[in-house]
Amino acid sequence: MSTRGEAAYAVLSHVRPLHLQAARAVTRRLQGQGITMAVRALLERLEDQGPQTVPQVAEWLDVSRQAVQRVVDDARRLGHVELRDNPAHRRSRLVALTGEGRRAYTALHAEELRTLGALAAGIEPDDLRTCAAVLERLAAALAAAPHGGA
Amino acid sequence: MSTRGEAAYAVLSHVRPLHLQAARAVTRRLQGQGITMAVRALLERLEDQGPQTVPQVAEWLDVSRQAVQRVVDDARRLGHVELRDNPAHRRSRLVALTGEGRRAYTALHAEELRTLGALAAGIEPDDLRTCAAVLERLAAALAAAPHGGA
Repeated sequence: MSTRGEAAYAVLSHVRPLHLQAARAVTRRLQGQGITMAVRALLERLEDQGPQTVPQVAEWLDVSRQAVQRVVDDARRLGHVELRDNPAHRRSRLVALTGEGRRAYTALHAEELRTLGALAAGIEPDDLRTCAAVLERLAAALAAAPHGGA
Repeated sequence: MSTRGEAAYAVLSHVRPLHLQAARAVTRRLQGQGITMAVRALLERLEDQGPQTVPQVAEWLDVSRQAVQRVVDDARRLGHVELRDNPAHRRSRLVALTGEGRRAYTALHAEELRTLGALAAGIEPDDLRTCAAVLERLAAALAAAPHGGA
């Protein structure tokens, strides 16, 4: 148990620095394009999940609805998202990608994958997949722990 | 390249949620002990690296010196750290663990390893080690990238 605990601890101890490094790199890359990291995250969510309400996005990103509303306003000013009526909830409109927003995100993401592929050139794809699966399982285990894990 | 890029992207996409889950879990666990997550991080750094100046801790945690100074003040009030003269820099004193601070951190960390070992019970230790190594290499590659990676 102790070996496994120490190995899991080593994973978690690398998560924070990598999170910071990745956030900084994404921010630098986006600077020239007038897109913030938050707008990028919104576009990704809408591309992956289809139109969402502000509360849905807020829950996913684990930030306040007010914060999401500001990001939606920014993305609308850029022409990347639009509001649509929500058949399910009259008072909570849907945020959806525009054609331009989809094109912008697709180009951005293709470039990210190219850069990441080059960065990870020395790492076996199987090891990357193992790593992603481990992170997903740890996050799920932590989320399910009654009193919170480590 | 694209497969590797996508696999690396999958890793990064799990880093942020796991970082949030872990921070929340640690915070919950520390609440009963009067230790904040920041104080815990300070104690860990001093245990692993020996006495450090405030600027050294600030650089490692990637936060401001003022923020570290507040954490050091909190830890001193708890009796977990003390200031010592620094033979190398007269104006930058060293922050060091007290005996009580070391005992508190050791007990805390042993409990974390037990909890994490239980949480990760279904994950192969080798996969955890592969994951930690991948995260470390990705963070290093991102840090070394001239214009920032993904």
